[in-house]
Amino acid sequence: MQLRDIDSIDTVACVGAGTIGGGWAAYFLARGLRVRVWDPSPVAGEKLGRLIDSAWPALTRLGLAANADKDAWSVHTDLADALDGAGFVQESAPEVLEMKQELLAGIARAAADDVVIASSTSGYSMTDMAVLAAEEGIADRLVVGHPFNPPYLIPLVEVVGGERTAPDAVDWAAEWYDAIGKSVIRMEREVPGFIANRLQEALWREALHMVNEGEATVDQIDRAITDGPGLRWPLQGPMLTFALAGGEGGMAHMLDHFGPSLLSPWTRLTAPELTPELRDAVIAGCDDEADGRSFDDLVAARDAAIIDIRRVVGELRSSMPGAAEGAGAQTSPQPNGQRSDGGAA
Amino acid sequence: MQLRDIDSIDTVACVGAGTIGGGWAAYFLARGLRVRVWDPSPVAGEKLGRLIDSAWPALTRLGLAANADKDAWSVHTDLADALDGAGFVQESAPEVLEMKQELLAGIARAAADDVVIASSTSGYSMTDMAVLAAEEGIADRLVVGHPFNPPYLIPLVEVVGGERTAPDAVDWAAEWYDAIGKSVIRMEREVPGFIANRLQEALWREALHMVNEGEATVDQIDRAITDGPGLRWPLQGPMLTFALAGGEGGMAHMLDHFGPSLLSPWTRLTAPELTPELRDAVIAGCDDEADGRSFDDLVAARDAAIIDIRRVVGELRSSMPGAAEGAGAQTSPQPNGQRSDGGAA
Repeated sequence: MQLRDIDSIDTVACVGAGTIGGGWAAYFLARGLRVRVWDPSPVAGEKLGRLIDSAWPALTRLGLAANADKDAWSVHTDLADALDGAGFVQESAPEVLEMKQELLAGIARAAADDVVIASSTSGYSMTDMAVLAAEEGIADRLVVGHPFNPPYLIPLVEVVGGERTAPDAVDWAAEWYDAIGKSVIRMEREVPGFIANRLQEALWREALHMVNEGEATVDQIDRAITDGPGLRWPLQGPMLTFALAGGEGGMAHMLDHFGPSLLSPWTRLTAPELTPELRDAVIAGCDDEADGRSFDDLVAARDAAIIDIRRVVGELRSSMPGAAEGAGAQTSPQPNGQRSDGGAA
Repeated sequence: MQLRDIDSIDTVACVGAGTIGGGWAAYFLARGLRVRVWDPSPVAGEKLGRLIDSAWPALTRLGLAANADKDAWSVHTDLADALDGAGFVQESAPEVLEMKQELLAGIARAAADDVVIASSTSGYSMTDMAVLAAEEGIADRLVVGHPFNPPYLIPLVEVVGGERTAPDAVDWAAEWYDAIGKSVIRMEREVPGFIANRLQEALWREALHMVNEGEATVDQIDRAITDGPGLRWPLQGPMLTFALAGGEGGMAHMLDHFGPSLLSPWTRLTAPELTPELRDAVIAGCDDEADGRSFDDLVAARDAAIIDIRRVVGELRSSMPGAAEGAGAQTSPQPNGQRSDGGAA
């Protein structure tokens, strides 16, 4: 399979220009690419212009490619026009399976043979989305490239192929997203919801159960994350966080000591049995992530991150409209306390 | 019930000085309080000194009370000595139910009548921990005050009483933690795992399932959070994040549009039925949180937070030991991309 040389690509196509497709377009422009958009809506161009305008200051702060041009885009109502000259296609149509199936087959028919076509779907498998293309034998370049909202600010992209996707196309997509500055997770097999959405969804479902049972309010749930574990997660994910909670003993200590709590009714989700294999896989994964950094180094990095994140978030909250009496103010960290110093010796 | 005047408190007791108890001690010192520690270990004082030394720079950056004195602590092996003069007690013994039961009864016997006693337990209910104290009729001042690691940096404290706890004592504890700068969630009823741990635990259990099934590696799970949703959560929790994903239509749009996805096998946790009551409760909760701020205001705040958090985390990662070739470097945001500009027009 001959696929386009990544370095040669100067133009990409975005199929669908809603919140996600438009966000992708803004990101591609910031990376110095020209963007050709297909969108049937008569107001697509106007909406996209507004989205790019509002995203551009953020993209500028994160750093633009030297040749980035915020106006290097065009909107087309004819699909073949939009794909003309594009070295990569990002499909971001609404989450309607039949629509995705038809669009992806249409794109696969019209795009040049060496072009990889990625879908932004947040939940469908490529195997399901590619059924029409597969009938025509043109599903081999179709991959999932699942971004997170907003795609121009969140680095994560989950890449996975379907049953008919060529492994080369999946590799190419992973390389492509990496080359344009994304953080890529290349999945080896299709799993409903991919990885990040499964994790988010587990948390979200437990939250819905709590609201449903009157155990917590919406505000309490959000604050439980923003003012708690959420402060640790931008630097160290849930696994490494848990490992650090085990002190010098790390993940091994945590699993051996708190493993039994997996049997506790701490969520409505039943945990898997903590077999020796699972235990060892989790410990080895954490060791890999730590990559030789000491416990003290990891803790120092975590603490530095929390302090800076609290400062950033605290400043933002106090500058937000309504901060004086809104939820934002109530939930801000109060590093200086509200306690009268007169009361303390 | 006559409880201590919060403004009059200049001394507190920490029962147990491990990672959590020691972290509390450091926090109390930073707030200008004197700390009396009970810990039976002969090396407790030495370990606590090291913990306070290593936490103090962080606490200084977050802002010390005017009268904060990093040396204003003492360690005692006699419980009554440690409680002498303390206006509040924070118990942070190991998570062993029998030990907690005996310690809490002992503290309730020895502490002054107007002193509230909080436990740092991460999972036991106060009803279960207070059984011995309840037999003696002295369980009314025992509350849970559950912190997050490290307690001197993470603002969240979950406050809840047991069956025998006086509601006044729970109110007092919520006021106390708020007064010393914590972000307090006051729960109305005991739920196993409280709120934040249930949310974390649901995510953690789904992650274990994925590792167990070979669907994701430990590194992929952590990166799925650090480079994805984790970047949004320090400012806006999962509920508000989900509402923003609905655009101007907000949470109502999301629930009506994506409600059916709750039936998808996106996690092993079955979701509750999305009844009209649950739907309306979630929407109303999000409206409360938004507190009149417009969709555009909320999005602008989210984006600003993500940019700043990515900068902070990116700087930390590139300065960490082993960053040149470690996992840290691979997962850092690459705001300038790695793409050769020569390839773009």
